[in-house]
Amino acid sequence: MKTKKILSQRVVLLIFVAASLVSCNRADKTTSSGEEVTTPSFDLTSAKKEIEAANQEFMGLLAKGDSVGLANSYTIDAAFMGGGAPAAEGREKIQSAMADIINSGVTKVDLRVKNVFGTEDLLAEEGELSIYVKDDVVDVGKYIVLWKKEDGKWKLFRDIFNSNLPAPAAK
Amino acid sequence: MKTKKILSQRVVLLIFVAASLVSCNRADKTTSSGEEVTTPSFDLTSAKKEIEAANQEFMGLLAKGDSVGLANSYTIDAAFMGGGAPAAEGREKIQSAMADIINSGVTKVDLRVKNVFGTEDLLAEEGELSIYVKDDVVDVGKYIVLWKKEDGKWKLFRDIFNSNLPAPAAK
Repeated sequence: MKTKKILSQRVVLLIFVAASLVSCNRADKTTSSGEEVTTPSFDLTSAKKEIEAANQEFMGLLAKGDSVGLANSYTIDAAFMGGGAPAAEGREKIQSAMADIINSGVTKVDLRVKNVFGTEDLLAEEGELSIYVKDDVVDVGKYIVLWKKEDGKWKLFRDIFNSNLPAPAAK
Repeated sequence: MKTKKILSQRVVLLIFVAASLVSCNRADKTTSSGEEVTTPSFDLTSAKKEIEAANQEFMGLLAKGDSVGLANSYTIDAAFMGGGAPAAEGREKIQSAMADIINSGVTKVDLRVKNVFGTEDLLAEEGELSIYVKDDVVDVGKYIVLWKKEDGKWKLFRDIFNSNLPAPAAK
């Protein structure tokens, strides 16, 4: 029965389409020879570039002294885990922490991505940073940032760092 | 046309089955009554308990002053990102960093998991810590640990923390 055969073919086609739509974390590619190749859809090399771009934006906002813009670089449920104080949780406290950094005289932060790990849902960045007051490097350190996408944009979800320099002698 | 209607229903059913088969990050279980139950394969609540157990083991090794055991709690490609020095990369340097901590007089570290995020492949832990010398708390702080499984066991892959206490006055 011809109708049945056509419908069966449609079943196969539709199953294939449905399978393609729901397959996650994987992109199916077809080579020129028609072979199907399955590769992870989340590319850490691209993700690293995206994080480098997000860091550029962050550094620009800091150089401008824009504490509101900096706070908006964090997710609404973010924690900024700077040293010398408990974590600042949420945008309001993070904005206040950013204003404190700006008001302390910091004019520039240089962020250098070393590695990224994880997935589209939660990306962990390992990096190194230098903190400047005018043209002088006043601190160098290392950090881990957990990034999440909010409205399709990478935002800082957890941000922790410490100094590589020996602590001043205790009181 | 009745045949067409039945086949259409089959299309819908088969799409649903296909979608179920290819959905990932999920484990399919069958109950004793034969019902199929779909549950997330990675359970963050269980993962949190596993990390708490791993932390208990870590705290035990530190209390015993076992720098070799502590170093073996880290993955072979781990980085210990303590403050006041660049990251210690690899087990040899991590063991040396652990020995330094023990030799500095630290007798106990209390690690308290706040949250875990991520997947079976890379778990991020957010926590709070207290550092003891004998019975005295000498520091309190916060940390992020990235955990990876090595030989089926959670091991520290990146470990960064800082103090909540104000830094001593600069030199």
